[in-house]
Amino acid sequence: MNRNLTMMTDLYELTMMYGYLREGMEQRRAVFDMFFRGQKGQEGYALMAGVEQLADYIQNLHFSPEDIGYLRSLKLFDEHFLARLERFTFTGNISAVPEGTVVFPNVPLVKVEAPLFEAQLVETALLNLIGHPMLIATKAHRIARAAEGDKVMEFGLRRAQGPDAGTWGARAAVIGGCASTSNVLTGMLFDIPVSGTHAHSWVMSFADELTAFRAYAHAFPDNCLLLVDTYDTLHSGVPHAIQVFKELRAKGHEPVGIRLDSGDLAYLSIQARRMLDEAGFPNAIICASNDLDEYLIRELKMQGAKISLWGVGTRLITAADMVSLGSVYKMGAMADEKGALQPKMKVSDNPAKITLPGDKEVWRLYDEQGMAAADYITLAGEEVDTGKPLTIFDPNATWKKMTLDKYTAKKLQEPLFVNGQFVGRKRTLKEITAYRAQDEKTFWEQYFRLQNPQKYKVDLSDSLWQLRKEMLEGAGK
Amino acid sequence: MNRNLTMMTDLYELTMMYGYLREGMEQRRAVFDMFFRGQKGQEGYALMAGVEQLADYIQNLHFSPEDIGYLRSLKLFDEHFLARLERFTFTGNISAVPEGTVVFPNVPLVKVEAPLFEAQLVETALLNLIGHPMLIATKAHRIARAAEGDKVMEFGLRRAQGPDAGTWGARAAVIGGCASTSNVLTGMLFDIPVSGTHAHSWVMSFADELTAFRAYAHAFPDNCLLLVDTYDTLHSGVPHAIQVFKELRAKGHEPVGIRLDSGDLAYLSIQARRMLDEAGFPNAIICASNDLDEYLIRELKMQGAKISLWGVGTRLITAADMVSLGSVYKMGAMADEKGALQPKMKVSDNPAKITLPGDKEVWRLYDEQGMAAADYITLAGEEVDTGKPLTIFDPNATWKKMTLDKYTAKKLQEPLFVNGQFVGRKRTLKEITAYRAQDEKTFWEQYFRLQNPQKYKVDLSDSLWQLRKEMLEGAGK
Repeated sequence: MNRNLTMMTDLYELTMMYGYLREGMEQRRAVFDMFFRGQKGQEGYALMAGVEQLADYIQNLHFSPEDIGYLRSLKLFDEHFLARLERFTFTGNISAVPEGTVVFPNVPLVKVEAPLFEAQLVETALLNLIGHPMLIATKAHRIARAAEGDKVMEFGLRRAQGPDAGTWGARAAVIGGCASTSNVLTGMLFDIPVSGTHAHSWVMSFADELTAFRAYAHAFPDNCLLLVDTYDTLHSGVPHAIQVFKELRAKGHEPVGIRLDSGDLAYLSIQARRMLDEAGFPNAIICASNDLDEYLIRELKMQGAKISLWGVGTRLITAADMVSLGSVYKMGAMADEKGALQPKMKVSDNPAKITLPGDKEVWRLYDEQGMAAADYITLAGEEVDTGKPLTIFDPNATWKKMTLDKYTAKKLQEPLFVNGQFVGRKRTLKEITAYRAQDEKTFWEQYFRLQNPQKYKVDLSDSLWQLRKEMLEGAGK
Repeated sequence: MNRNLTMMTDLYELTMMYGYLREGMEQRRAVFDMFFRGQKGQEGYALMAGVEQLADYIQNLHFSPEDIGYLRSLKLFDEHFLARLERFTFTGNISAVPEGTVVFPNVPLVKVEAPLFEAQLVETALLNLIGHPMLIATKAHRIARAAEGDKVMEFGLRRAQGPDAGTWGARAAVIGGCASTSNVLTGMLFDIPVSGTHAHSWVMSFADELTAFRAYAHAFPDNCLLLVDTYDTLHSGVPHAIQVFKELRAKGHEPVGIRLDSGDLAYLSIQARRMLDEAGFPNAIICASNDLDEYLIRELKMQGAKISLWGVGTRLITAADMVSLGSVYKMGAMADEKGALQPKMKVSDNPAKITLPGDKEVWRLYDEQGMAAADYITLAGEEVDTGKPLTIFDPNATWKKMTLDKYTAKKLQEPLFVNGQFVGRKRTLKEITAYRAQDEKTFWEQYFRLQNPQKYKVDLSDSLWQLRKEMLEGAGK
């Protein structure tokens, strides 16, 4: 998508860039990490997403004459700065964890290494473009897992927080595990299945429900899924649907099934299942929707609901109980006057807000069975020698140790831009979802638990841990 | 904004349109109402918004050759239908409540009266484009009121659910009462003030905090607002800020103030206020941010926090505790074979989901003091004769009556499109916020209470109430 979001930035990125230019610091190399903190209710895993949007954004970065004119009108900046913005392109390096990867709090997911001037500008958009899809992909993954293999349709466009949230949110939902979307634009942009049948207004447009169902079956004889709750599900909707299904079959077509959108979905689906079975339609599916989320789906399954297709809208497309991923973008290192990269660290009274210093690399360690054992953060350039045992420890509880004897290690981030040139691998959405399905198999179930998931190990190399310790003590607090 | 969102629709709008075309019903006039239901936690007022986006959408509606090609590839539709889509334009009428108006659950806010084919297509986008800005404008209004006249800056772009949510959300936040946004794109598009200073990374880029503050003051001598919590607010940040403020003043500049972004904002602001006052800077403001919302701001005010400028991000731009407005689009009437408009009504086991039948009009009634007394829904064509007393009653509790003796009435919706032509009034954001400030003065405080607001009266005319009663009984349930 060719959309210039250069001006979609917090003003403070520009005021800082102006300051850096005035101080002659704008070309100093800086390294920033994007990660999420795992705030309350979100201590568990997330799914990586949004990398394609980030790549589009970086490639389209430039200030138009109108942009410059507007910035001039703010009377905050001088002409030297505006002329520098006119020439702006991104010349740095970016690496990122591939979309669809299972990821954890406090692990660097995107690394930007660029002149300070450039690395600062991209902060706001990067957080927006990565944070939102990650949030929705994660929510979708939780919902799809609760559906235990049943297909989940993403239905939320009308309740999404704007067009992008509906469109890119639906893409993210498919990364997370949804089988289709109702959003036709998303279907077209990303080549994913679209689904949908009819609304209550269809039924209300006809003299009666039976006429409405017949008309729908006439239009879609091989795609006939009927919404049965406009008037009375069990006394009117299901009997009428069965009548139309029989008429369809007489003409050589098999119906798809029915949809429930209100009422007690457990009870109604069990009754409707019985009625459909007795009428000779054991293969007609029952689809349900109505403010569903992972918890409700799990409850309905526990209560024996006969639902095999789930339409999930509002609570998926807004990630209703998470709202925001809480992702941040923090400086890890910056070049000094001589160009030598110096580690940087944010110190805070709140230990959760202390950052990891240095130019870093992230490894995922796998045990002999190929299961993910820990993420391991090193300083850039450190190698992980899988030939000898590795003892890892929790950086916040160093007495918690584990020694890996036989293990493999892979770098979690892959290059996306080198010297401003896109070098990433373009993946179709199908490739991404296939990769996600593969990647999640390397994790034990307990990491995906809906509540109180097992804490995944994220450990630091000795060198990084030492550096952090020295800098903390050096801060003299 | 010239952006074609025609394909941003649920697939079922298209399958229904296809069905209507096959049944020869596509040109029948239909009347749909958009309203919100006032779900749990949202029983009170909302602010109208999003009308400008809706108008843009309607004016840009058309299917491109690529769109048609994609729809053909779905193998759901025939060529007759696709040819009809190629010629698609919106030819109907739309009226809407102006942006910035205080509105209430179950009151029709947008009315679409158009051929069924057209009225059906626009459902999904309309709900998305109106629902999201209303949600954010309402949240912003609650937050701005909690700030009791202090300025509130919208800061949420990085945590918004995608670019549109950040950009149009910021516009909505200003409608709701925010004074400015950090989002430069929103500032440029809608001519609203942008604000922002520097991040922790600015401070970390320099050898020490004092050097960083001096550099910032050097770049912005007349806009110097310093973030003081990077290392230690009271022992480092505020003393350093005061030192730089003194240096600024010596050069003839007055500082703006300081910003707190972590810690106990009540305590820190009281201490910082004292330090600034004692140092001779009683006019230096204290700005605060950090996961704020209306409840936290109210708490901080109750605790005597010395904060006079508020930066609100995540919880505003996502409307964290509301998530979605729950708006719906329901058929009120449709023409029969002869072209005569017939009332339509959705009946449901759930009384909250029963809709109001007919082609309707909405009036706002004001008492002698000019205060809003009730909204009054009539059938289209009914007049409200303010020359004689009017007795209104709660449609869900008809014994609750009130008689207005002297009152005025105005129609709440104004025409936006007539026969497909835009006839609405283009308003600048300044006009909209001025209108909102005016409109809210016609409501007693109790309607805006953060919790358990007073229920505003929304009543039906006798004719509408009778029609609803007859149709409910006729439904034979």
